[in-house]
Amino acid sequence: MDKTDWKLLKEIADLEKTPQGAYNIRVNGQMDSRSTTANIDITTKTDGKSGIDIRVKPGTKKESVHIPVIIHATGFTELVYNDFFIGEDCDIDIVAGCGIHNTGCETAQHDGLHTFYIGKNSKVRYVERHYGEGEGTGERIFNPQTVVYLEEGASIQMETTQIRGVDSTKRDTKIVVGKNAEAVITEKLLTHGSQTAESDMEIILDGEGASGRVISRSVAQEESKQIFYPKMTGNNKCFGHVQCDSIIMGNAQVSSIPAIVANHVDAQLIHEAAIGRIAGDQLLKLMTLGLTEEEAEEKILDGFLQ
Amino acid sequence: MDKTDWKLLKEIADLEKTPQGAYNIRVNGQMDSRSTTANIDITTKTDGKSGIDIRVKPGTKKESVHIPVIIHATGFTELVYNDFFIGEDCDIDIVAGCGIHNTGCETAQHDGLHTFYIGKNSKVRYVERHYGEGEGTGERIFNPQTVVYLEEGASIQMETTQIRGVDSTKRDTKIVVGKNAEAVITEKLLTHGSQTAESDMEIILDGEGASGRVISRSVAQEESKQIFYPKMTGNNKCFGHVQCDSIIMGNAQVSSIPAIVANHVDAQLIHEAAIGRIAGDQLLKLMTLGLTEEEAEEKILDGFLQ
Repeated sequence: MDKTDWKLLKEIADLEKTPQGAYNIRVNGQMDSRSTTANIDITTKTDGKSGIDIRVKPGTKKESVHIPVIIHATGFTELVYNDFFIGEDCDIDIVAGCGIHNTGCETAQHDGLHTFYIGKNSKVRYVERHYGEGEGTGERIFNPQTVVYLEEGASIQMETTQIRGVDSTKRDTKIVVGKNAEAVITEKLLTHGSQTAESDMEIILDGEGASGRVISRSVAQEESKQIFYPKMTGNNKCFGHVQCDSIIMGNAQVSSIPAIVANHVDAQLIHEAAIGRIAGDQLLKLMTLGLTEEEAEEKILDGFLQ
Repeated sequence: MDKTDWKLLKEIADLEKTPQGAYNIRVNGQMDSRSTTANIDITTKTDGKSGIDIRVKPGTKKESVHIPVIIHATGFTELVYNDFFIGEDCDIDIVAGCGIHNTGCETAQHDGLHTFYIGKNSKVRYVERHYGEGEGTGERIFNPQTVVYLEEGASIQMETTQIRGVDSTKRDTKIVVGKNAEAVITEKLLTHGSQTAESDMEIILDGEGASGRVISRSVAQEESKQIFYPKMTGNNKCFGHVQCDSIIMGNAQVSSIPAIVANHVDAQLIHEAAIGRIAGDQLLKLMTLGLTEEEAEEKILDGFLQ
């Protein structure tokens, strides 16, 4: 791993050195390094598919798994399957993410399918960051697919971030929420240039007392295009809330097409969406404090995307 | 026209006698009676299609047009084309609506395509009520299609109501909103039994300063199913707001699938949707005031649908 790799690792996983706990670092499709713990095992798939299985023993608490992926070979594309088997009564952090440094003229692409089986009463915090850079003309493409099954009383807090440098992305997220289980998704997305981003989500509130929350915040700059399809389905006594806010700039285009589907009399579902430009008075206020228009804009966008 | 017809007219157009101003009453596919005024002309279509043309002279104010349709023949189905040509600077009320009294075992169906060309700075209030009754087992079906073109500064306030008795409906509404023009749609819908209702809407905010507002309120009872597709597209500096609220009861199912699409940096679009049951504390409060549960429920639904 060279300096560029470490820079990518910092961007996608906030790592400045080898992480503590379990980890698996993948570079250009090959395992770079791996560490397991007494409670968390990581094994290379043996069924012919590329990817790893992560198994977390019941009762594992306050441990973390880092599984960053780095690509710096232009023309390199991969499809990776990672499966997470989380036992009962766990409380763990999983940090994934992929960074592409493309200096060439060919497409570099990472497609990942992550499947989570989360046992009874377990809590998982799942963080996924996508980042692209490199002076090459080759495209940087991510198509992440995430499927989560939450058993009774389990919860996932999923935070996905894509800030700059990704030419094209199509995100697919599906979460099946069991009895008294909870799914919270926070999505942050910024596109610029002629980038395109599509995010499909389906939260199925299947168990009695299931709850789901989606908070999607996006900024579309220049000529970029974004489209969102968040869907929340209530099949039982449940509560679901979808909130999508987008800031539109330049000649960008944003479509927000949510769906709330109530198949049960005790399903309570709410959706809110807003698309608009940065408020003029907010800009003005910051500019009277001495910021240039560009600085003021950046400040507001930072705050919006936290 | 007999007593049953007048009862239907009262339900759909609030008429107890022949209306004032221009009108065209259609019964079982035939013209029953018609009246025109100096400013409002109604003519039977001559292009082979069934339906009428309504022409309103520029500057016509405080006049109304009633065009109710009644069907009491079981097995009768019709497809009607009504075109409205509204001159500039008008301010008029249009009351449409259809009532079906089906005592037989065959389907009675009214499909209507209404197209409005609304001239500069004209204001139109358009009211449409659908109602079905009759002890027969034959279905009562309505498939209304409404297309509206609003010129500069024009406005339409469209109020559609379907309360009880309609077995199946598929509504299709499309409004193209010009410069500084405004479209406001208020939709009220109640389904029960095994009824199905689908409402597709598309508001295209095309002109600078265009605005659109959709307020949809629905109640789904028993085994009925409702699905809503309101779409608001901003192609210019504009403001759009979509609000859908549904009360779900019994084994009913409700889907709300709105879309807001911003194709312009100054398009400001907002959507809100909620699906839920009647709040328990609201029911309880009315019941402590002496109402039965059924009475309390009815009171709340009446208030919700105004």
